[in-house]
Amino acid sequence: MAGNTIGQVFRVTTFGESHGVALGCIVDGCPPGLEISEADLQVDLDRRRPGTSKYTTQRREADEVRFLSGVFEGKTTGTSIGLLIENTDQRSQDYSKIADRFRPGHADYTYHQKYGHRDYRGGGRSSARETAMRVAAGAIAKKYLKQEFGIEVRCCLSQMGDVTIDSVDWDQVEQNPFFCPDVSKLDALDELIRNLKKEGDSVGAKLTVVANNVPVGLGEPVFDRLDADIAYALMGINAVKGVEIGDGFDVVNQRGSEHRDELTPSGFKSNHAGGILGGISSGQEIVAHLALKPTSSITVPGETINVDGETVDVVTRGRHDPCVGIRAVPIAEAMVAIVLMDHLLRHRAQNAGVHTSTPKI
Amino acid sequence: MAGNTIGQVFRVTTFGESHGVALGCIVDGCPPGLEISEADLQVDLDRRRPGTSKYTTQRREADEVRFLSGVFEGKTTGTSIGLLIENTDQRSQDYSKIADRFRPGHADYTYHQKYGHRDYRGGGRSSARETAMRVAAGAIAKKYLKQEFGIEVRCCLSQMGDVTIDSVDWDQVEQNPFFCPDVSKLDALDELIRNLKKEGDSVGAKLTVVANNVPVGLGEPVFDRLDADIAYALMGINAVKGVEIGDGFDVVNQRGSEHRDELTPSGFKSNHAGGILGGISSGQEIVAHLALKPTSSITVPGETINVDGETVDVVTRGRHDPCVGIRAVPIAEAMVAIVLMDHLLRHRAQNAGVHTSTPKI
Amino acid sequence: MAGNTIGQVFRVTTFGESHGVALGCIVDGCPPGLEISEADLQVDLDRRRPGTSKYTTQRREADEVRFLSGVFEGKTTGTSIGLLIENTDQRSQDYSKIADRFRPGHADYTYHQKYGHRDYRGGGRSSARETAMRVAAGAIAKKYLKQEFGIEVRCCLSQMGDVTIDSVDWDQVEQNPFFCPDVSKLDALDELIRNLKKEGDSVGAKLTVVANNVPVGLGEPVFDRLDADIAYALMGINAVKGVEIGDGFDVVNQRGSEHRDELTPSGFKSNHAGGILGGISSGQEIVAHLALKPTSSITVPGETINVDGETVDVVTRGRHDPCVGIRAVPIAEAMVAIVLMDHLLRHRAQNAGVHTSTPKI
Amino acid sequence: MAGNTIGQVFRVTTFGESHGVALGCIVDGCPPGLEISEADLQVDLDRRRPGTSKYTTQRREADEVRFLSGVFEGKTTGTSIGLLIENTDQRSQDYSKIADRFRPGHADYTYHQKYGHRDYRGGGRSSARETAMRVAAGAIAKKYLKQEFGIEVRCCLSQMGDVTIDSVDWDQVEQNPFFCPDVSKLDALDELIRNLKKEGDSVGAKLTVVANNVPVGLGEPVFDRLDADIAYALMGINAVKGVEIGDGFDVVNQRGSEHRDELTPSGFKSNHAGGILGGISSGQEIVAHLALKPTSSITVPGETINVDGETVDVVTRGRHDPCVGIRAVPIAEAMVAIVLMDHLLRHRAQNAGVHTSTPKI
Repeated sequence: MAGNTIGQVFRVTTFGESHGVALGCIVDGCPPGLEISEADLQVDLDRRRPGTSKYTTQRREADEVRFLSGVFEGKTTGTSIGLLIENTDQRSQDYSKIADRFRPGHADYTYHQKYGHRDYRGGGRSSARETAMRVAAGAIAKKYLKQEFGIEVRCCLSQMGDVTIDSVDWDQVEQNPFFCPDVSKLDALDELIRNLKKEGDSVGAKLTVVANNVPVGLGEPVFDRLDADIAYALMGINAVKGVEIGDGFDVVNQRGSEHRDELTPSGFKSNHAGGILGGISSGQEIVAHLALKPTSSITVPGETINVDGETVDVVTRGRHDPCVGIRAVPIAEAMVAIVLMDHLLRHRAQNAGVHTSTPKI
Repeated sequence: MAGNTIGQVFRVTTFGESHGVALGCIVDGCPPGLEISEADLQVDLDRRRPGTSKYTTQRREADEVRFLSGVFEGKTTGTSIGLLIENTDQRSQDYSKIADRFRPGHADYTYHQKYGHRDYRGGGRSSARETAMRVAAGAIAKKYLKQEFGIEVRCCLSQMGDVTIDSVDWDQVEQNPFFCPDVSKLDALDELIRNLKKEGDSVGAKLTVVANNVPVGLGEPVFDRLDADIAYALMGINAVKGVEIGDGFDVVNQRGSEHRDELTPSGFKSNHAGGILGGISSGQEIVAHLALKPTSSITVPGETINVDGETVDVVTRGRHDPCVGIRAVPIAEAMVAIVLMDHLLRHRAQNAGVHTSTPKI
Repeated sequence: MAGNTIGQVFRVTTFGESHGVALGCIVDGCPPGLEISEADLQVDLDRRRPGTSKYTTQRREADEVRFLSGVFEGKTTGTSIGLLIENTDQRSQDYSKIADRFRPGHADYTYHQKYGHRDYRGGGRSSARETAMRVAAGAIAKKYLKQEFGIEVRCCLSQMGDVTIDSVDWDQVEQNPFFCPDVSKLDALDELIRNLKKEGDSVGAKLTVVANNVPVGLGEPVFDRLDADIAYALMGINAVKGVEIGDGFDVVNQRGSEHRDELTPSGFKSNHAGGILGGISSGQEIVAHLALKPTSSITVPGETINVDGETVDVVTRGRHDPCVGIRAVPIAEAMVAIVLMDHLLRHRAQNAGVHTSTPKI
Repeated sequence: MAGNTIGQVFRVTTFGESHGVALGCIVDGCPPGLEISEADLQVDLDRRRPGTSKYTTQRREADEVRFLSGVFEGKTTGTSIGLLIENTDQRSQDYSKIADRFRPGHADYTYHQKYGHRDYRGGGRSSARETAMRVAAGAIAKKYLKQEFGIEVRCCLSQMGDVTIDSVDWDQVEQNPFFCPDVSKLDALDELIRNLKKEGDSVGAKLTVVANNVPVGLGEPVFDRLDADIAYALMGINAVKGVEIGDGFDVVNQRGSEHRDELTPSGFKSNHAGGILGGISSGQEIVAHLALKPTSSITVPGETINVDGETVDVVTRGRHDPCVGIRAVPIAEAMVAIVLMDHLLRHRAQNAGVHTSTPKI
């Protein structure tokens, strides 16, 4: 209820501030017997980690995750898994100037008014640094989904500023620092980022998440629909302002005869729905898009107020990404993986043993 | 967990199928002492009700809601409120033809595969008829929000097909059957609907929800952010495929210096964020958009399969809206009101007594 | 959160007051495909129903339950099941005298102080009449448990006042109005009740619930232990003041060498633990006891205060049981059945597919 | 849902095994601004800690707790609090002999059958060592309850074996290693424990928890009653087999005229109810009792089976308490404090602002 937990059966609860002692989380409800090691989680943590390319913030965190419980002799025990990442590079001094003022576009003002007392160092709990634990927890879900069902959850860049991606080659995504699936756009992206750095400004991004091999039947009928829970999970990532399933906002100007995905004995003819019908997975690819705002941590001077309500200037120095969208790729994958994992287990709880004679297309 | 409940403190659990005996819900967690009557709920139910204009389905349901519990001498008691709407106009025979085939774009196929056994009459549980109970429950939330905080939650049409709304006059919204805030677009909308009826086709819609007077501080920090919960609530409405907060997908091509809403002693300079920062309400207007797909209940013939996996034709006769977006206006209001109500009570649980000397702008 | 729901996967949410329009509940999370009819529920409702013998309150309620949703063509659909019992014999006038005074031993004072506004008619929401819906919901759980696992949940009287039951013959339990398993004690019970009626007084009772054929492995490890959830469920029945699992309070003076149930290849040697080890079912019989206080609805005059804080007398006229324990038998069964059902589905969610080579003893 | 979390608003989720790297927990939902330090938690941890007297197990753990998040400049921030205790004295070798056999009275067999794969070292997750985190979390609740409401939650020994405690002097409780409130029984307790050590056997215990200054109105009406939640919390402590509220099982032979606590303008005349009416606190002292079984970790040889289903002997060497009841005193306090804290915040969520003109007695 206090907002640091996601999931019903597969539950992830996180803690930790940007410049605190450590980040951690508890993953509860993971089935027993899953072979897992810290190295399985490290892969995605390294993809998210700042300081790995010249395009992302130069803050250097080892982000080494440790299992504290729940894994015995290399396999999950079915009890709660404790995960910990110690903060090593904190540099709190960078942030002392903003202790008493509210950075525009940040959660400083809202945290101050909500809680009265806040950890202002690097945004404290509101920092995207917290998402490291989501990535770690998501990696457990990804491993289970892959191993048990062959499900893969992948994400890539779809647009950054006015650079739109037209073709998707998943093999390219991990080959460049933009998670860009279209090699022909790399130069344009590089130029955009370099210009932003010069200007001290930032830009938004659009990402696409795709999950394949998802079995038909996941999602609950009325409120906890699979699409609703994906929307919740993606909108809950820092800086996200929009979420689409399948054709998303394009449906506004579609006709029903065009949008409906007709069924044939060998499968659906199209996938405008993004793999979800009535809130339940159809067996097609799950497709979702998300829009991330440009970060407000920029060096272009801005105006704001301080804790006494007086006008002051604000310039965010420190180490920040010109485009937070780049690093959100593994986070978006993790969130969708957590949702799918949770719904798989939920589905199993109630519907184990359901068998239909209709072939699953 | 089984998906028929929304909310944590203010909890709404619904039941009922399109052509069953009755629809109902339990509203739990409503504060005691709220003056409420069935008439308060009926207003919004009538706005949602089919058959009220020539533009919407001609199915006629009185949709009269009754309190079964939780209200005594005109005031809520603080215990669970039972609500009931009996189904009067069921015409199950209309649907007998589709008992064994899966309508494209509907939940027939996914329900069949998930549950093995489904109520096929009019979509059963997956029918938008279920949303009547959300509207009823939302009306209780709306009354409390209005009375205690002056909060108003309103929704209007923003786009239907290629007809975009450019100006918003809230006084117009209830004056026309399209919930359109721009009187200059009524003719275009009328023409669009008439053409669709001729073609037997349907079209999508975009709606905008606005909540004003929302106090600063609502929303939880990491997962149950106010924007995440609004996304969950709106994406959970039948036919919704996209949700935006504030500038939504436009942020992809914005600069940080443009997007961040600067603060002044007298308020924010802009509201690109849609009233939510770091997942917590900022005290500005909450602004959200949603995209609804064109309904698949159309008379344009389509192809599908039946329960034996064979190809069959499908034509949806019966009484259906060419644009489901129209009727979703009160539903979207209800969903946002339920989310705000829940977060108000949640905020109060943990943060009652928090006081800051900083003026709330 | 507002306290009218029990269960996580198999969820039961109730509404309704003693003298309101109707009682109802929503059973969510029931697996699809279960054959069920109103008659299946009516059996237990009739066992709980007041007015069925000279030993229980003479209030006459038909207590006829109706399915409003979730059951189609005689089988559950997997979506939420709405249940309704209309109140027919309300006689509100009996209670008008107590509208402004707090009956000792009742919830009048605590409801008044908690909610400010209460339905005083017959105790409103705090009346044991609410338990009719628990019995109805429990009957669904009982049917599923019996059919899928052969699990039976039974309850009987163990003690009333100073009349203790020494031997258990389950065949006798349904043959007498006391749910007494020992035919030799019927005369003593009859005399006790008759004396209490003369005195206008009441007495407490102890019940025993037994569930057999429960598979090993149900219950979660730390907080949601099976015994903890049974304690929660039984203590939540009106008038219950104590709960024991297995040997209960007798363990205080046992030795470890006596209490521990040794294992042999053909089974446990004893069952001091009541079928639960480390919070998880062991495959043995689940045994629980509960103590119910004597009802405070008696004609022996008592002293109390009114809403103005002044001393007043109180005599509870109306139709009341001298021993509420009698009618709690089907309620206790229902509660344990709901807990077992919920834990079966929860276990399946996380541990489906777990296989051990160790024989289950 | 996976059972490692307690509470709704004030939520505690624990992780860690007896001989793993560390124990930890996340306390979520704590109000911001509470002054708290590790020393506040250490007091109760030291009371629970093994090896502190000759009467308890000689395993030595420093049990030093650290805040990892959620506390900034000495005050809670309102976000999730991470707590960690590293395991220092693990001696895994002591347990190697029992890796393949199921100790009677322990959770070895049930964990094995439930999960297939278990951490057998010292009981792994099922070890009472896990309760250290409950004590740590409970200490936060206790501090808040004390500071904001003057509520004190205390526990003492009521009976051990056949030694019953007749008088309660709270000042004595912390003065002796038995948490015994009756100084005249110390010799008898000492003798009992010494004899048990000689015999290599163990004995059960009964504890009493009392909470005073609890305001009227805490607890929800039907399922999440305060007494039901206390029963859940106490029955969830390792080895507990019985829970009573107020007079507990004595009510079975009480008359209604004797049990009901009459009200007067200056307060209740008695407290048979243990401070809870209709599941809601009455403003009187909350009184609960719990029975703890004798531990099965004894040196008296016993019979059991191994993972191959064969009969084997079992003798539990190592360092174990002859009476686990002694160390459960701070645990029981912690559990009741967590429940009260949670219900205080829950009450506030829904009923803030409720005012009655009736004086609270």
